[in-house]
Order: sequence, then structure tokens, then C-alpha cells
Amino acid sequence: MNRLVSLTALLGERCCTDADTLQRYGLDWTRFCQPAPLAVLFPQTQEEVQEIVRIANREGLQLVPSGGRTGLSGGACATAGEVVVSLERMNRLLAFDATDRLMTVEAGMVTETLQQLARERGLYFPVDFASRGSSQVGGNVAINAGGIRVLRYGMFRDWVAGLTVVTGAGELLQLNHGLVKNNTGYDLRHLFVGSEGTLGLVTAVTLKLARPPADSGVMLFAVPQLADVMTVLARFRQFADPLAFEFFSDAALAQVEARGHVASPFEGRYGYYALVEYERITPDVDEMALTAFAGLAGEGVVADAVLAQSDEQARRLWRLREDISESITPRTPYKNDIAVHPSQVPAFVAELDTLLAREYPGFEVVWFGHIGDGNLHVNVLRPPELTVEAFRQACERVNALVFGLVAAYNGSMSAEHGVGLLKAPYLAVSRSPEEIALMRGIKAVFDPRGVMNPGKLIA
Amino acid sequence: MNRLVSLTALLGERCCTDADTLQRYGLDWTRFCQPAPLAVLFPQTQEEVQEIVRIANREGLQLVPSGGRTGLSGGACATAGEVVVSLERMNRLLAFDATDRLMTVEAGMVTETLQQLARERGLYFPVDFASRGSSQVGGNVAINAGGIRVLRYGMFRDWVAGLTVVTGAGELLQLNHGLVKNNTGYDLRHLFVGSEGTLGLVTAVTLKLARPPADSGVMLFAVPQLADVMTVLARFRQFADPLAFEFFSDAALAQVEARGHVASPFEGRYGYYALVEYERITPDVDEMALTAFAGLAGEGVVADAVLAQSDEQARRLWRLREDISESITPRTPYKNDIAVHPSQVPAFVAELDTLLAREYPGFEVVWFGHIGDGNLHVNVLRPPELTVEAFRQACERVNALVFGLVAAYNGSMSAEHGVGLLKAPYLAVSRSPEEIALMRGIKAVFDPRGVMNPGKLIA
Repeated sequence: MNRLVSLTALLGERCCTDADTLQRYGLDWTRFCQPAPLAVLFPQTQEEVQEIVRIANREGLQLVPSGGRTGLSGGACATAGEVVVSLERMNRLLAFDATDRLMTVEAGMVTETLQQLARERGLYFPVDFASRGSSQVGGNVAINAGGIRVLRYGMFRDWVAGLTVVTGAGELLQLNHGLVKNNTGYDLRHLFVGSEGTLGLVTAVTLKLARPPADSGVMLFAVPQLADVMTVLARFRQFADPLAFEFFSDAALAQVEARGHVASPFEGRYGYYALVEYERITPDVDEMALTAFAGLAGEGVVADAVLAQSDEQARRLWRLREDISESITPRTPYKNDIAVHPSQVPAFVAELDTLLAREYPGFEVVWFGHIGDGNLHVNVLRPPELTVEAFRQACERVNALVFGLVAAYNGSMSAEHGVGLLKAPYLAVSRSPEEIALMRGIKAVFDPRGVMNPGKLIA
Repeated sequence: MNRLVSLTALLGERCCTDADTLQRYGLDWTRFCQPAPLAVLFPQTQEEVQEIVRIANREGLQLVPSGGRTGLSGGACATAGEVVVSLERMNRLLAFDATDRLMTVEAGMVTETLQQLARERGLYFPVDFASRGSSQVGGNVAINAGGIRVLRYGMFRDWVAGLTVVTGAGELLQLNHGLVKNNTGYDLRHLFVGSEGTLGLVTAVTLKLARPPADSGVMLFAVPQLADVMTVLARFRQFADPLAFEFFSDAALAQVEARGHVASPFEGRYGYYALVEYERITPDVDEMALTAFAGLAGEGVVADAVLAQSDEQARRLWRLREDISESITPRTPYKNDIAVHPSQVPAFVAELDTLLAREYPGFEVVWFGHIGDGNLHVNVLRPPELTVEAFRQACERVNALVFGLVAAYNGSMSAEHGVGLLKAPYLAVSRSPEEIALMRGIKAVFDPRGVMNPGKLIA
């Protein structure tokens, strides 16, 4: 335990080495890794974080930043004797200004708390996703979180007005100070967003807040042909800026219905379903939506549709989409989170379906995702006759197929889940050798001794 | 001319050394520099740009990228034997997709052409500013252009979905491929936006396009107290997301009126004026605006207001703001383009006014700017009795006052005009020594031989 003398002197009981803590904080939601951290630290101030990084540089320790550990790519896993730095005790609201519509919070604040604090002040923090109750603001910055409102509000990056970070060299930086306009050189704030803890630790974040959206309408469409899903989106965009535009395949719907909690509102079965949520910014927007449906039905683009008549019904329509992930869990699905241009989604899905059907005829493929921004979640279900291990080995080869096609479409091999430990071997699918070399060069500038999150992103 | 053998072999007559061309392309709108380029190049393809950078690396030449040369900080000036690379012959539309709402253009396309091409396709490119008819897309990326719609639509950075660049080392990078979601490592696209040509040359840009805004209402308020201008903004934000929110002082209005083209719509004189433009997204928004005015008048916040009753009247109200810059030109104003948090604008302006009145009682200060996003244009007018040179020397000392206060407010010493040659000595006002050192480190990664835009930004 000699290696922890300085850290224990700094943090006392907040430098933990008990087995439970090491196990818990050594992992994120990625369940493929074996946790093996040397210690878990719980700093309470930015000065402590800075001192931790200095000690790590001096004593040859490596650090893994830890937020809510809801990541799906192993970005917060500590598997090789690293020291985990949990930001969870740094979770205070530091500042709020109604005129500037800015809120500054410590990195360990839970996303849902941030959303709540904004609401209490008559404003709105729009980035939202299923892990809102556990994920933390610093982790959202590290991964550049996305979710269900990206179509309207963009990614987490678009809401970061300022960052306080400690670099891998132990320097404290105040980036952009929450300014709207500041053209004074390279935007290091944007460099940190999405850097997955490889350049330094985020200690505080200044976030932009928005006017709360008006009451919203939710509509579900039955769309026999995938290509027509994009027609539905185009039609809606003529009179509204949709808050969300999601899709799922009939195979996905069947999995959700099999659980017995919610059921399709339609009599028949159709190839695909599109869910659109729009702001009721004008009183006649529902009417325009129904007119759009009539037109689309007349053209044979959509076969059926429902407009939620109550909040409860809207929630039930959303559950048809949001429950997919949980519903397929028993089938230990092989997941990929990819993106192509929205216009290319139908061609991409058709091509991949054909490829998978030919190479793996026994595999069932469930499609769903944020189709409005080109983000597709591909889930291959394990055939009951295959063991989990045999299935996983088969899927390693499926990966090659999927990523080969992603590269051909100039797509992203990780749309919103990041690269982390799990996808680091596949970085070249979406980034050129020249880009990867430049990323390594940048990493060396911020973290010359390689202290920060080793093995992640650019392993 | 020996130094140009390789470049002449590559480009023939498109490698120019005649005096007129050297003079014209050696300068931007910053008129303080003496142009002295070695040559001016007009590449027509990305391959030629790449070859130019390779030659520069091999033969020890330095390159200055050149767009519309409308910059105000000398970022495109060539004063020390550099080779200017004009992108103006690379100005084609390369791709458009209505579903993705993306347009890819070469870097030399003029901003207004881009706006027009979007309009012709039923879409809208929202970043807009006075130099729209000359500025080019590549230059807008280099400077991260702002303008009059930032409050609603953000900076140029927010509309860049993809970039093709040639780094200072001569590598061709395709950054982000126009994807909405792509969490695969450091966002080099955002690093290039605002890098002022110091990391490489932008050859093509993929831009996001928006739904065209509805018809808009324009209202001008007379506001006796500066602090109350922010109250007007807050009130409007309760029912609308303003497209623009501008302010100017009575001294600024007087300068515009003195030219005799447009006149104040108000009987009396007031300290400040606020111009708000809002989208008529609902039929009753004008009514809400008038109700807001009645409330503000009742509270004594505003003294008077007009709502434009026609497009022509709206244009005339806008001219009261937009003509300021031209109106004060005969007084050779000393200009600064700074930003603080919007909430701090009143305190900042009051403090700077007091400081300037004490130190320079003979100087007249004209204030105007995009107050909704905290961006202030401070213009000190030359007293008639001072020569231009004596005035400029005095203003070098004014700079110290202004920038000292900007630093105290954690503001930006260049909100939208960039750093370039002119403001490079003041970079430390807005960026810490650690940040500047990191910027130098990044520069060395992308441009190891220092080929790109020497002396600019981080001189």
C-alpha cells in the first residue's frame, strides 16, 4: 500500500481500498470488464483534484475519472491497477443567472438534478436520456451525451458554455467563462467535450439553459416501408421543428409487447413505426399534423396513425420505443450504436439486413433509434440454441460486417456512446490514420506522462 | 524569384507576383498593415492546396490563407514575405441534401451566395453579418463568424457539420463527414473553427441549414437607463425567442442622424435604444409585444416604443443600428469588439464610461452592439483637434484601460473579430498562460514547421 501514501495523506478516509468500493467503482454499465483499481478517491474540492493529478504525475500513478458510471463503452472502467477519481462528492450548484440563462454546477451533479434545478427557476435543460437519474454532468461532458432530443436541441456539447478542468499535467483551466462570443484562439472547451477523460478531469461545468418548450403532441405512425419513414419526417418539418423523431422495427415492437406492459395501438402489423413529438407552439399544430397524416395516408406512405389524446396516452406511445432496450435484455443482444446521414438510413439498413440475413440466417435483428439524426441502435438477438459465449464470438465477426458498412457510408461507429475501452480497437472505422495520429499528439500536449484514463479512446 | 519555381511549375499563371495583386491580396479590412507578400496563389483543387502546403514545408515558405479579406484583426494580412493562398477560385456547390438539410461548398464561396443557394432550396442559412457580400465560407470558419442572429442561431461554429482541411503538415483531413452524432474522439472540426488559419487551410465546408423563419416583427424601444435594456430582453423572452436584440447609445443615434438618411422615430432623446426582432410564429405575438411594452412603460423601464408597420419601416429601424459604423468612420474611431456576460453589460459599460471620462475627458464614446449576447462595440471618436496619429497613440493607452476591465470581468477581448495580427499582443487578456502554452503545443502538432499564418493569434 506504499503507493498510496501521498493520496492517503491528502484525502484520509476518502482514499478507499476496500473490496466493495474497488469492485463498484471499477466498472461502468459495460459488464465485460474485470474491475481491478488500486484505489478509489473521493475529492471534495478542485484543489484536491489538482493535487491528485500532481501526485499521479510524480508517483507514476494512472487515473480513471468516474461519474455516474452509466457509460456503455467501458470509458470509466479501471481494469489495470489505476486509481479511480470519483467526482460524486462534488455535486453543488455554484452559480445561476436568469439574464444569462447560465447555471454552473460541479461535475458530480446528477443530470436529473440539473434538469430539476433549471425547472425550479423557470428554465429548461434539454439534453435528456434514459440514464438521467444516475449519470453525472462531468460524464456527460466527457462522452458528449446525446439522447432523445438531439434533433431539436443538439448534443450536450451545444449546451456547454464553460468548463473548469484539470489537465493531465495538473494545470487548472477555466475555459470560455460562460461567454456567448469569445473568438480568442483555439476552443479548448470543445476539445474537452467528448475527450472521455483522456486529457484531464472536468471539475465544473457552466451550462446554457433554454425557454421551456410548450406542451407537446405525440403521434405514432405505422410505416410499411423504411424509406417512407424519412418522408414522414420531411412532411412534419414543413410546419414544425420536431422535438423527437424515433423509429423501431416490428421485431422491436413484438419484443416490447411480449412483456405485456404496453400494446400496439394498431390492428395490423407493419414493417416500421415512427414516433414524432412536436411542440404545440401554435393552436392549430395538431390539425396540421392530422392533415399531414391524411396526405401521407393518401399517398400510401403511412398505413395508420394515432395522435395521443392525453399525457397518459403519450407516455404509453413513448414506452413502445423506450422499453425496447429492457425488453430484449433476456436475449443478451449484441448492441451497436452507429450513425449515418439520415438520408442514407433506409439504404444502410436494407444493405445491412441483407448482409446479416445471408451471413447469419439464424440471427434476429432488432432495429430502433433516433432516426431523425441518423442514429441507429442495431441489436442482434441471441438465438436460444446458442450459448452466450458462442454468440459473442459469432458477433465479433458480425462487428466486422457492421463496421465495414459504416465505414463505406462515412458513418460513425459510435454515435453517442463514445469509444472507451470497448470500441478503441475500432477507432479507424470512423477516423483516418492521420486524425488518430493528431489525436495522440494532442493527448501528449495535455497529458505528457499519460496519466489520464489509459487504454481508452486512443489505446 | 527562384523561391517560386516549384509553385509556378504547379500553378502557372495562377502564381501571381504583380504589384497590384500583391497589394490587394496582402491586406484585409484592417488598414494598419503594410502588405508585402512574396506571391499570391489561386489554387482550383484540393490537390493543388495540398501540394502548395507540401512545397511550403519543403522549401521553407510561409502561407497566409485568404478568403474575402473582410477581417478586422489582420488575420489575412501578409506583411513579411509570406505566400498568400487565395481560395476564391474554389467556390462551387459540391453537394446538397434536403433530408439531411446539409450543403457542402468549397471554402471560397461567398457567404451571400451560400445564403441564396439555401433559400432557393426552401431552406435557410442563418449566420448573417454586414460583410455577407464579400466574406467567404472558409474565412467564416477560420474566424468563427458571429453577427446579428447569434442570440437565436449561435455562431458559425454551430452550423459546421463537416470540414475538409489541409493541415500545416500537408495532410488532408475529412472531419466529421456531416454527421449529427459522432462520438469517436477529439472533435478536430471544432478545433479548426476559429483557429484563424494557423493549423491549416479549410478547402470545403459542410453546413447545416434550417427551416426559414416566419415573417418577423421589429420594435424599437427608448430606454433611459442602460440597466433597463436587459429588462426589456427578459420580458420578450417570456413569450418569444428573439431573432436579434441590439442596442445603441444616444451618441450613436446622433451620429447616424447627422448623415441625414434616417431619423429617430421618437420625439424626445433618451440614453439608450433597444431594437428587438422576433419571429411571428403565432398570430398574437405582436399583441403580446405591445402588451409587454405597456407593462414596461408602466414600470418606467421604457419611455417610448415603435412597432414597425411595414417591411420598409422595419428596414429603417434596422438602419438606425446598422448605419452606426459607417456614420462614425469620418471620426476615425478607435474600435474594440468585446464581450462580457449579458447580465454584466450595464455594470461594465458604466464602469468603463466613468474610467474613460476621467482619463480622457475630451473623448466621445459611442456604444452599440449585440447586447443580447453580451457583445459590445466600443468606439472612441477622435476629437477634431487631434491628428489621427496622436489619437491612435492616445488610444493605445485606452486599450490598456479597456482590456484591464475586460479581464476583470472575465470577458473576451475579441468577441467576434478574432485575434489575428492586431490583437495577438493582447491574447493574455482572455486566455491564461497555461492555455496559451497549450495552444502553442496544439499548433506544433498540426503545423510542426510553422508554415501556417505566422505571427497570427499566437505570435
